[in-house]
Amino acid sequence: MQATMLYGPRDIRFEERADPAIVHPTDAIIRVAASCVCGSDLWPYRGVQKINEPTPMGHEYCGVVEEVGSAVRNVRPGQFVIGSFFASDNSCPVCNHGYQSSCQNAEFVGGAQAPYLRVPLADGTLVATPLTPGADMLPDLLALSDVMGTGWFGALAADVRPGVTVAVVGDGAVGLLAILSARQMGAQRIIAMSRHAPRQQLAREFGATDVVEQRGDEGVQRILELTSGLGVDCAIECVGTQESMIQAIRATRQGGHVGYVGVPHGVSLNGEELFFEHVHLHGGPAPVRNYLPQLIGLALDGKIQPGKVFDLRLPLARVAEGYRAMDERRAIKTLLMP
Amino acid sequence: MQATMLYGPRDIRFEERADPAIVHPTDAIIRVAASCVCGSDLWPYRGVQKINEPTPMGHEYCGVVEEVGSAVRNVRPGQFVIGSFFASDNSCPVCNHGYQSSCQNAEFVGGAQAPYLRVPLADGTLVATPLTPGADMLPDLLALSDVMGTGWFGALAADVRPGVTVAVVGDGAVGLLAILSARQMGAQRIIAMSRHAPRQQLAREFGATDVVEQRGDEGVQRILELTSGLGVDCAIECVGTQESMIQAIRATRQGGHVGYVGVPHGVSLNGEELFFEHVHLHGGPAPVRNYLPQLIGLALDGKIQPGKVFDLRLPLARVAEGYRAMDERRAIKTLLMP
Repeated sequence: MQATMLYGPRDIRFEERADPAIVHPTDAIIRVAASCVCGSDLWPYRGVQKINEPTPMGHEYCGVVEEVGSAVRNVRPGQFVIGSFFASDNSCPVCNHGYQSSCQNAEFVGGAQAPYLRVPLADGTLVATPLTPGADMLPDLLALSDVMGTGWFGALAADVRPGVTVAVVGDGAVGLLAILSARQMGAQRIIAMSRHAPRQQLAREFGATDVVEQRGDEGVQRILELTSGLGVDCAIECVGTQESMIQAIRATRQGGHVGYVGVPHGVSLNGEELFFEHVHLHGGPAPVRNYLPQLIGLALDGKIQPGKVFDLRLPLARVAEGYRAMDERRAIKTLLMP
Repeated sequence: MQATMLYGPRDIRFEERADPAIVHPTDAIIRVAASCVCGSDLWPYRGVQKINEPTPMGHEYCGVVEEVGSAVRNVRPGQFVIGSFFASDNSCPVCNHGYQSSCQNAEFVGGAQAPYLRVPLADGTLVATPLTPGADMLPDLLALSDVMGTGWFGALAADVRPGVTVAVVGDGAVGLLAILSARQMGAQRIIAMSRHAPRQQLAREFGATDVVEQRGDEGVQRILELTSGLGVDCAIECVGTQESMIQAIRATRQGGHVGYVGVPHGVSLNGEELFFEHVHLHGGPAPVRNYLPQLIGLALDGKIQPGKVFDLRLPLARVAEGYRAMDERRAIKTLLMP
């Protein structure tokens, strides 16, 4: 098959690779119906995160089961499935506590920007939809594989509940879907931090009530002005830089909650500042698997349309163009069709 | 009056100071029935925390109201009262959220190791007991002014609830009372991290089911062994050093909660490690005022005996001796009687 490889900074190649095959009896092979480029793919793409060798890219996927290993019981060939970027057994004590992305047997699923994909721990990782969805549903369902579940976890980690005031730091796909999640969870006021007009528009469509264009200390100041000097009840951090993390913490009132889902790069938190900020902090890799059944239901019922974050759709062969568009912020998120 | 001043590292003096007087109409003056030396007093005592000038010491107190300012409504002369180390108005939005120690008008109460004390914002800060307690109740009630409420907040911040497994890092008075708190809240298993026999004994008396003597990575390893490799549901950090904080975080299972109440000194948290540890983090200066009514009830009913942490009792004039005993770890906590 032809698939996506990263060779070094900004060097994406679409080239011949061996078709994936069952390695362990718990594996499944799926024929990818749609994949996409993730904001976190940009860390190695930009060279911020080093790679040691040419690396198969992509970890978001949905598609049809082609083949299963001999130990697989919960999914069968022909089913349409969605999985998370972390394969999990969904049965260890960590999974039972709802943290499948830290499963004691977790395995990262890589190489999804391809026509075929091997998914380890298929029984624990994949969730089948009741029927094979039409092509129009693909974007919404694909979004559940990572960004929607990550925004959802961010909102849960920030303890969003009916009536609260929320700030969302970051206007990438995850930030936008954190807004959608906060709206679903009943937040009364949702402040989007964004300075890009098309993203602001989508933010409002997803439920943002206010937009703050300022960043850093100025952004915090603006949030305090909007909240009578108190700060928000909940902040959802969806970037992963020192600046965005500090912004989220300082924008939150004492006793409030910061949920962080941006993969931290070079972030260091001062213990004394954190102590006196008095906030709750929770985050990490989103246990997307935990939310898949619920989110599939919401998407199939048309209650959420997370696929709106895909504003560029390309054939898989043009994947390099999809990375460039996101790198240059011309696209929020690129959908790839094999 | 004669009162306690710190002049520099290990230089405690008991010397003449002006009697406190009403400064603001919201002040009260109390005649101190008992005061004590706090673990956090040792930071400036040891010179770790610099002081710029001779400083009145002590922030834990209970006693009888002597005089109130013209605006004070909730307490009156003759009442026996307990207050927190942070004065708070108990009516601002931050107080209403239960974070009185971050009150928008918070003021630190200093100089309690003295016969008389001025307490600002008396209406919001002081809580009167139903009757004037006998001398035998003084240690239990005094403990509520800081250490008991701080251990209690640590347990709440660590989300302790019936059936959980808890680790407590630190065997000072706060750590010991965090054990007592976790027991009150229904924890099933409580692992005390302590290498001092008398403290281990009190830990067990307060409800510890296990004692771990190892520290650092070895301590974490031992906790993992005790919890089938999973880690505890809840860790309560009661020291404030880098080592103790990391120990608490690493001993906690993914999705578990770390409550931290040790005032951090030189603590820096790596964002990436925190992300993949997947824990909840909450802490800060304990909003003791929030818990005073409940804890006074528990103490007067004999359901908790937090005063057991006082293993040295001295007349106030011998305060310097009390500091020395705690500095050299010969005493857990020194009670001072004016």
